Amino acid sequence: MFFALAAGIGTHNTKDDWLEVYYPAPLFQPAHPLIEKISSVIGYTGGNVAITLDNPSCHALENIFHQHGLDEQASIMTTLESADSPKVLMLMEHDLAPTTTPEIYLKLHLISHRFVKPHEINFKNIFSLLPNVAWTIDGAIDPEELPYRQLRARAEGRILEVTSIDKFPKMANYVVPSGVRIAQTARVRLGAYVGAGTTIMHEGFINFNAGTEGRVMVEGRISAGVFIGQGSDLGGGCSTMGTLSGGNDVIISVGENCLIGANAGIGISLGNRCTVEAGLYLTSTSKVQLLNEDQHSVEIVKAKSLAGLSDLLFRRNSITGAIECLVNPSAITLNEELHTHN
Amino acid sequence: MFFALAAGIGTHNTKDDWLEVYYPAPLFQPAHPLIEKISSVIGYTGGNVAITLDNPSCHALENIFHQHGLDEQASIMTTLESADSPKVLMLMEHDLAPTTTPEIYLKLHLISHRFVKPHEINFKNIFSLLPNVAWTIDGAIDPEELPYRQLRARAEGRILEVTSIDKFPKMANYVVPSGVRIAQTARVRLGAYVGAGTTIMHEGFINFNAGTEGRVMVEGRISAGVFIGQGSDLGGGCSTMGTLSGGNDVIISVGENCLIGANAGIGISLGNRCTVEAGLYLTSTSKVQLLNEDQHSVEIVKAKSLAGLSDLLFRRNSITGAIECLVNPSAITLNEELHTHN
Amino acid sequence: MFFALAAGIGTHNTKDDWLEVYYPAPLFQPAHPLIEKISSVIGYTGGNVAITLDNPSCHALENIFHQHGLDEQASIMTTLESADSPKVLMLMEHDLAPTTTPEIYLKLHLISHRFVKPHEINFKNIFSLLPNVAWTIDGAIDPEELPYRQLRARAEGRILEVTSIDKFPKMANYVVPSGVRIAQTARVRLGAYVGAGTTIMHEGFINFNAGTEGRVMVEGRISAGVFIGQGSDLGGGCSTMGTLSGGNDVIISVGENCLIGANAGIGISLGNRCTVEAGLYLTSTSKVQLLNEDQHSVEIVKAKSLAGLSDLLFRRNSITGAIECLVNPSAITLNEELHTHN
Repeated sequence: MFFALAAGIGTHNTKDDWLEVYYPAPLFQPAHPLIEKISSVIGYTGGNVAITLDNPSCHALENIFHQHGLDEQASIMTTLESADSPKVLMLMEHDLAPTTTPEIYLKLHLISHRFVKPHEINFKNIFSLLPNVAWTIDGAIDPEELPYRQLRARAEGRILEVTSIDKFPKMANYVVPSGVRIAQTARVRLGAYVGAGTTIMHEGFINFNAGTEGRVMVEGRISAGVFIGQGSDLGGGCSTMGTLSGGNDVIISVGENCLIGANAGIGISLGNRCTVEAGLYLTSTSKVQLLNEDQHSVEIVKAKSLAGLSDLLFRRNSITGAIECLVNPSAITLNEELHTHN
Repeated sequence: MFFALAAGIGTHNTKDDWLEVYYPAPLFQPAHPLIEKISSVIGYTGGNVAITLDNPSCHALENIFHQHGLDEQASIMTTLESADSPKVLMLMEHDLAPTTTPEIYLKLHLISHRFVKPHEINFKNIFSLLPNVAWTIDGAIDPEELPYRQLRARAEGRILEVTSIDKFPKMANYVVPSGVRIAQTARVRLGAYVGAGTTIMHEGFINFNAGTEGRVMVEGRISAGVFIGQGSDLGGGCSTMGTLSGGNDVIISVGENCLIGANAGIGISLGNRCTVEAGLYLTSTSKVQLLNEDQHSVEIVKAKSLAGLSDLLFRRNSITGAIECLVNPSAITLNEELHTHN
Repeated sequence: MFFALAAGIGTHNTKDDWLEVYYPAPLFQPAHPLIEKISSVIGYTGGNVAITLDNPSCHALENIFHQHGLDEQASIMTTLESADSPKVLMLMEHDLAPTTTPEIYLKLHLISHRFVKPHEINFKNIFSLLPNVAWTIDGAIDPEELPYRQLRARAEGRILEVTSIDKFPKMANYVVPSGVRIAQTARVRLGAYVGAGTTIMHEGFINFNAGTEGRVMVEGRISAGVFIGQGSDLGGGCSTMGTLSGGNDVIISVGENCLIGANAGIGISLGNRCTVEAGLYLTSTSKVQLLNEDQHSVEIVKAKSLAGLSDLLFRRNSITGAIECLVNPSAITLNEELHTHN
């Protein structure tokens, strides 16, 4: 069974279309009695629906949440009651291709709150549904309405700071999961899954529907769909090929305790304890010389035939120029002091 | 004939020097009767001049714009009349080396509004003329006056957010052209030309006097002077050599439907339908092995002798280490869903 | 002798722990009479201590600073007197491993104010001591208190902009040293040493306890501990290996008038007038072919044996794939126009 529900507050453009929704504390797989009680009070009859909330509905939900011991959610309803912005109750009974902005935003929240992992939820057609938004210091603005707002700010003696023009907001304005550091929040989209203990440095990046498990050092780019295992280290500026623009359907993952060096890149998945030397880009069609333990060449294979295997070290021989693969002599260990204090 | 005029509002430092000017809706090549009317009312006698606007002048301009059917510009004058910030009317009869800050800012606006393309306008001496500015949440501040403002903000219980110390502001605070996404606006300078349909991801960058034509995916860096053709894809972290710091005068361009792979780079221009493999940096002096259709080596040439040619694929042979060039087997096609919904 | 003192204003979380401290104008190696006067009035008896300042103490300090001709510091005290935020006087007699947040923040300020250089000051255990902070448009917030603040902002019709979740703030919100440009301040941490004349472009990055001397162009990443000499140029996206995550204790430095090409990288120190070709990553264990002046191979050595030597050019032979080292034919010269107008 799949069920998610959340009360949210967000922004409409002047045509009353949703631009974005913030769900402070979504509930995933809530108890049946709660769903039934909400159904009877709010008039929910199943399916995936976004119900506009007025103040009496907020008050009714506050009572229901209290009765079910959900004090955080009840307290949130109290606050929402006093707010003038548009409010919504999103109920999701099935994990289908989303059809509304409030539904997409709830799914993005579910991943960033770590209720579900990347690839465990349906994001079909998300790009065609999500509105493009001008993210500004004055909140979310429809790009068509931006020039008017910019001029009005100038008339007030201000410059309207526009931080992003994108379909996805930065995660940190919606969810900051426990135990993380994100040096530059502008580089992590809502819908990223950031494991407890992960540090994302200034050059790190995580797209939506992608992320890390546990303690990972991210100084490179985690493309849409890519997932990185516990204890791995992505060096500065390194690249992982995603499914969106790479043009193929293979989903890249990196296992545990891997090291991808600075300015390196991978077009194949890695198992555990693998190392890719700094500056080496390993595409799926790269030919690779396999070396035995005496470091003699044994065979030449395509990189994709090594995808997902563990304990490999990839390097470019700096005399012959050949890409070589040998057994990784040492798994990396992350700098303890850097990571234990998130 | 070249003529541009625009009413702007901006910021002075405490010495009444211009720090920046915002032109909400510049006019390029306006009709002669409009110029004549403005000349007679405002007292303009030709040349490139920045005329300070007081409220009666704003009102007079509002009337003139109305009479000439320019309702957007008229409406802007109404708003400017109510503003306390410094206002200016910039008239530009010739495309000469700019001499004032309002003139430079209008030229930067003209490119970002897509009235003129990179290299079509004179930016001589721009670095020595443009003032360095502290761009903050409280607007543009002279760096010399910043410490006082920072302390004052602290006394008010605030931290003054300083986003940039630079001669160029971010484009999005001035112009957001139609049909674009810019995930991180801090990486696109005013004076960038961003084609309709272009998506600039978090790792993308566009300098002033550089840009894209139409639908382009930008996850790499477009240096000053570089222009990218319709349908091309710049992979994550890829590099294009600019004219400013590269030390040579060759202007780099990329044709249509090219793919520059992640972490790759180019020091030569590319024609149409070219591919540079992920991770390969092709400088103008790189020696390249030309392969025939049987993939046999035919000749060794310098990369610059291949500049501007179409249908080439550049890769580094992962067994021999040699940079090879062969006929590109397939032009790339951009992910449709990603790009059609800007 | 080592002595530093500074009055600061900062932020507490709701438990009254320090989150951050801003020292507008620290004093380094101040005159003895000043220290003695402050000792007698404030009750300082030596050591490294953070003394909470109330308004009478601020007033007393104002008088002392005036008496000692320190008008800037006196004027700051006048402003601090009127502020409600927590205030502190930090006195530091010894450069020991820091033990409090105000002490660490003063050390970070000392470097960014150019009083001391990277590696000249003790930062032991800094990661375990520094609190993780949510840096927002509403100031510094304890990450545990962030959800409440985000919800409250929403109830007020605002989105609370969260720019960073990190132990280090951006330098520019605390110190902007003279003669610099920093296109994206989010990429320079407090504790960076930025030389007069340095330009940090959008892709540039400087960690704490790292930096540049004088006129340097930074379009790449200066990792913790790395120092770059006068006149050098770090190309776009280039990498320098730091001591924190690289796992070794060798401190990397780059001498004067070096050029590290775009997307290149170094794991060894460079002397003066060295060039690393664009796209080449030189690790300390890379084998390098030494060429004589006739460009014939003389010997093969490990890159680390060349560490710190001057006048070297490193490139990858694009036909043989070998990393080669030869005498650098020409030192680079930075673009004058770009750099002389900071």
